[in-house]
Amino acid sequence: MNFGSDNWAGAHPEIAASLTTHAAGFAKPYGESDLDAAIEEQLKTAFEHDLSAFFVATGTAANSLALTAVSKPGGIVFAHREAHIIVDECGAPEYLSGQLRICPIDGEQGKMNLKALRSEVERVAAYDVHGGRPVAISITNPTESGTVYTLSEIDAISAIAKEFHLPLHMDGARFANGLVSQNCSPAEMTWHRGVDILSFGATKNGCWCAEAVLFFNKPLAQDFRFLRKRAAQLFSKSRFVSAQLEAYLKNDLWLRIAQHSNALCRQLASIFDACPRMRIVRTPAANELFVIMKVEDADMLEREGVVFLRWPEAGMGVVGEGEVVGRFVTSFATTGEGVRGVGGCLGVEVEGINGH
Amino acid sequence: MNFGSDNWAGAHPEIAASLTTHAAGFAKPYGESDLDAAIEEQLKTAFEHDLSAFFVATGTAANSLALTAVSKPGGIVFAHREAHIIVDECGAPEYLSGQLRICPIDGEQGKMNLKALRSEVERVAAYDVHGGRPVAISITNPTESGTVYTLSEIDAISAIAKEFHLPLHMDGARFANGLVSQNCSPAEMTWHRGVDILSFGATKNGCWCAEAVLFFNKPLAQDFRFLRKRAAQLFSKSRFVSAQLEAYLKNDLWLRIAQHSNALCRQLASIFDACPRMRIVRTPAANELFVIMKVEDADMLEREGVVFLRWPEAGMGVVGEGEVVGRFVTSFATTGEGVRGVGGCLGVEVEGINGH
Amino acid sequence: MNFGSDNWAGAHPEIAASLTTHAAGFAKPYGESDLDAAIEEQLKTAFEHDLSAFFVATGTAANSLALTAVSKPGGIVFAHREAHIIVDECGAPEYLSGQLRICPIDGEQGKMNLKALRSEVERVAAYDVHGGRPVAISITNPTESGTVYTLSEIDAISAIAKEFHLPLHMDGARFANGLVSQNCSPAEMTWHRGVDILSFGATKNGCWCAEAVLFFNKPLAQDFRFLRKRAAQLFSKSRFVSAQLEAYLKNDLWLRIAQHSNALCRQLASIFDACPRMRIVRTPAANELFVIMKVEDADMLEREGVVFLRWPEAGMGVVGEGEVVGRFVTSFATTGEGVRGVGGCLGVEVEGINGH
Amino acid sequence: MNFGSDNWAGAHPEIAASLTTHAAGFAKPYGESDLDAAIEEQLKTAFEHDLSAFFVATGTAANSLALTAVSKPGGIVFAHREAHIIVDECGAPEYLSGQLRICPIDGEQGKMNLKALRSEVERVAAYDVHGGRPVAISITNPTESGTVYTLSEIDAISAIAKEFHLPLHMDGARFANGLVSQNCSPAEMTWHRGVDILSFGATKNGCWCAEAVLFFNKPLAQDFRFLRKRAAQLFSKSRFVSAQLEAYLKNDLWLRIAQHSNALCRQLASIFDACPRMRIVRTPAANELFVIMKVEDADMLEREGVVFLRWPEAGMGVVGEGEVVGRFVTSFATTGEGVRGVGGCLGVEVEGINGH
Repeated sequence: MNFGSDNWAGAHPEIAASLTTHAAGFAKPYGESDLDAAIEEQLKTAFEHDLSAFFVATGTAANSLALTAVSKPGGIVFAHREAHIIVDECGAPEYLSGQLRICPIDGEQGKMNLKALRSEVERVAAYDVHGGRPVAISITNPTESGTVYTLSEIDAISAIAKEFHLPLHMDGARFANGLVSQNCSPAEMTWHRGVDILSFGATKNGCWCAEAVLFFNKPLAQDFRFLRKRAAQLFSKSRFVSAQLEAYLKNDLWLRIAQHSNALCRQLASIFDACPRMRIVRTPAANELFVIMKVEDADMLEREGVVFLRWPEAGMGVVGEGEVVGRFVTSFATTGEGVRGVGGCLGVEVEGINGH
Repeated sequence: MNFGSDNWAGAHPEIAASLTTHAAGFAKPYGESDLDAAIEEQLKTAFEHDLSAFFVATGTAANSLALTAVSKPGGIVFAHREAHIIVDECGAPEYLSGQLRICPIDGEQGKMNLKALRSEVERVAAYDVHGGRPVAISITNPTESGTVYTLSEIDAISAIAKEFHLPLHMDGARFANGLVSQNCSPAEMTWHRGVDILSFGATKNGCWCAEAVLFFNKPLAQDFRFLRKRAAQLFSKSRFVSAQLEAYLKNDLWLRIAQHSNALCRQLASIFDACPRMRIVRTPAANELFVIMKVEDADMLEREGVVFLRWPEAGMGVVGEGEVVGRFVTSFATTGEGVRGVGGCLGVEVEGINGH
Repeated sequence: MNFGSDNWAGAHPEIAASLTTHAAGFAKPYGESDLDAAIEEQLKTAFEHDLSAFFVATGTAANSLALTAVSKPGGIVFAHREAHIIVDECGAPEYLSGQLRICPIDGEQGKMNLKALRSEVERVAAYDVHGGRPVAISITNPTESGTVYTLSEIDAISAIAKEFHLPLHMDGARFANGLVSQNCSPAEMTWHRGVDILSFGATKNGCWCAEAVLFFNKPLAQDFRFLRKRAAQLFSKSRFVSAQLEAYLKNDLWLRIAQHSNALCRQLASIFDACPRMRIVRTPAANELFVIMKVEDADMLEREGVVFLRWPEAGMGVVGEGEVVGRFVTSFATTGEGVRGVGGCLGVEVEGINGH
Repeated sequence: MNFGSDNWAGAHPEIAASLTTHAAGFAKPYGESDLDAAIEEQLKTAFEHDLSAFFVATGTAANSLALTAVSKPGGIVFAHREAHIIVDECGAPEYLSGQLRICPIDGEQGKMNLKALRSEVERVAAYDVHGGRPVAISITNPTESGTVYTLSEIDAISAIAKEFHLPLHMDGARFANGLVSQNCSPAEMTWHRGVDILSFGATKNGCWCAEAVLFFNKPLAQDFRFLRKRAAQLFSKSRFVSAQLEAYLKNDLWLRIAQHSNALCRQLASIFDACPRMRIVRTPAANELFVIMKVEDADMLEREGVVFLRWPEAGMGVVGEGEVVGRFVTSFATTGEGVRGVGGCLGVEVEGINGH
């Protein structure tokens, strides 16, 4: 009954096996092995578009260096107030870009409010050298709140980006969960919508360590080889990432894992829904779920061995006296048994939760 | 017959197996798992000293953040002219520290000349705010030239560091090879000598990706948690590094691998020694070997399937017209058969090269 | 009738004269002249406290380097949403500190709301390495809105700073105008209140170029000599600043200029107050005045030769259709004649506006 | 008898007078006044070329931001080992550019050796992402050693820059002294030779504070407005620099001052030449003179009131036991009387030293 986070899980067996398979033999280091090249080709196929792919060590690196690639002196990036790049990266985007400021945009359900976004971009664009200048818009999909931007919602943000000639970056730390949620193709979620750069996260979805920056807009990648090396993000034995991604992409493993995680998240939601003492916050659309509960219920769940995080209330809406927000995340390692176990703790039984 | 580099090899089978073993189950992310804690304890035991250990993604990250941890405004680090931090890290130390300048020190055999080192440190320390100030001395052991500082040579540099109240950093990208070469303990190579911070590299010695910064002088690590996260170097599933190091340290695998690599390097050297058309540059003491040869011999070896790098001559001494420097590196994956194969290409046979 | 800004004025005649006086003769450069030392002593006397004073080129430099001096990796500074360091410095604080993030705090009248401030500081302090950490609180006094924090308002913010062990920085770009407004001493406005570092601005108040960082908390200045030089902010002929400040401090010239500017600002306000088509925004307390007017009135004033800035509405409250915010700033160079001239344009006459 | 440095002098009377003249009246701040525009035009006339001019606070800022303007990730600049940007700027170029490394080039007489320069540029250009990449060549003229590159010497360096497609930067902290020394026009010293960016220093030559970056290659200035503001180098009352430069350029005051300084430096040299106990180091060509003397002579001169700096020997050639290098600098404020005074101390009389 561990819902701590999708990075509390280890690696999917097929991914671990691939690492063992590729452990033998010699190959060029620093991203120049045949396997590295093959994975880039597979990504092109998966996204139905030419692209440049760069492995980095962490999602924070992917986001920060993606934004660094489009930064300019005085540059300002626009992102939702709760975006990972603002709240959870310890200043890495400012640090690695050497200055970038991230302008927080309000919005319900973890999604940027269009009017607020336009207003802030306009204000900065209109001001002079003192105020800096817009350089990018960044969206997280799925969002930090477990919701997912629909394709038309992305279109609306993309239109603002295009109007102001700004590249559009997507933080896809849980990209596969978003795809499955929207039942769309990788292409439809990204470059069809005008996304220029994607932080393509695979770690949370069953890899040990596999994060990449994908440039659909290849000229933006011009300096990235140097940016990555200079930021100490160029793995020597880079095929250890490629080996993971080979298994990840093979037979749609990535989508199957995400379907599994999303499905179990929905089932967990149905359990909370059925429990009158629990209130689900926002509309879960991927593999994250935020629930308001009484402190004593949270204590009880933990005593029973349910692992989840108590979340800062900020922006989570009306949390009453004696209440707490719990975050639950599912992953490839989550089992139907674990989900049913939560139901058991709450005295709730829901049909249709399958599997072990 | 691949001697391209020790990072052309993949992962040692025991290390790959450990990753598979630890792929299952849940554990706290971001360096807070039980396994992460256990590995830190094992490192304390291996080094016979209390220490703080931080995993990072690359050796460049280890070096750059170690130096950032001791940096100050106007800071200058002193290192050998051929040091990895000067020649091979694309400016990462300057970038990640936000300014550090690295003052190159001359010296034979890849080792800093003591008089030159003292003279430069004195000059900077004596000057005022315009000239900056000394903040650290960094040595690479084994050096970039394949030589190894003896314990007394480290003592002499350490004495200068202590005299000027400078922390001493050691870039140990091939640390195990150095230990085996000097037949000394980890403690004797490091804090016994006054080394404050070690970049502890395991990737080149059989891991997929395992680099750590070890602080024997723990107060210097005060801000490192933030430095690492801010530099996008904090792995979420950090136990994938711990799992590698568990196997690495177990039953002295790391030392056994290094003994293997060093031994095969010596045997390769004996082959080149026996070939009058080849001149070994510097005294190989670990698992790297630099050889001056005629261009036609280099071409022939490559045609025969021997993989090695043609090295820039800079600092490699007298390279004649029509000659080239070849670098050969051995690793856990190097075989006696491969070494004998080089002998075969050169028509040289040497006794005592064992194993497959 | 020029109210463009207090930096549209040149230099006060006494300040220009002092520069001429000190143009002759030789003196040590880089802040080490006798005159530089004498001015530091005069500042100690004026502030009734020991302090370290450092000249820099601009107010942006003073603010950014003051914050850099107290920065740490992952550091977050708290400041009002409209603070100069957020809105008007093109990212200089992030850039010069190498990462600092500035967390915007809401609040009426250009002043931080105490509850909002405490809530944000608490949130960041409670979170872990991912969220960074609080490193300073910065207030602007007078504020960007032309209001002035009272002594007790500063006390309340200072209490939060002390509670969280954060240094308190004051951006005093118009410091003298604030003093005169509150009718208090330099000491009472600063270290009496717990202010640790002051950006002491004199340029806007009649100097050509005279900005200093004053550390009442001297240990915080430990690295500042290097910070300043490294940021290219160490003037060689530093006595050209000292010469200005000599005249500035002599016979309270600085306070007399501020009294003049504040008085004329009040008189200008009384004119706008008397004009029913104009609405004064916020309560002017120093030498800046924000007025909502109809676009046609703004056009008319400009045609008549009144110079002022059309200000972005953001945060300025309810600006109706066809209305605009005008910002008017007075300085040593503003004359009663100029102020009366504005009254003339508006058909308003107010008694008690003296002087030329 | 003050030869401490040309920044120990204050301001030339004509420059001080111009500041007083322009102290009155209102003008747009931040470089947008009519006077600012007029000075840019005068610089175009003086240099016989279109250009973009940006005032900054210090020579260090001019150099560091000029190089930042042409920097790229992994960027390496090539400069003489004794260049101000390496030895005297406390890491400002690395800091303000966010990473730049400066590769020191050897060379006699303070001038880069062509072969050494080419060899280093070639080495870096040939290496891959690990080694970074060349981004600029920077020369100082007059050099830090008081010598001056001839026009053909600049041509030779410029040819290497062009061959490798690198912009050529000139640190002209004492630019006027160099012009007068070579008896050439500003154009001939700069863009005729292929210089793309000039740090145009006027402070040392009689101004209080007047440094500018001049881009002859205007596309390189594209981001400079933002670079300057972000680096806290945009003066609000920028016309205080323009006012100085107005007087500086008027009736060739700048060249007359430089002629005066250079002439007195030659005369001082003739005194040292006539004194057998003194050895002039390098060939003084501008207004700096390095002299090897016995410590007791240095002591005696200081007792007699001669002010000069004892210079670090590094690179100054053979300094014997009991000897010291003295640096003497002349300026607009140096008098014939002062120079004759040195002769008096040494018991040397030389004809032809005129003026007070």
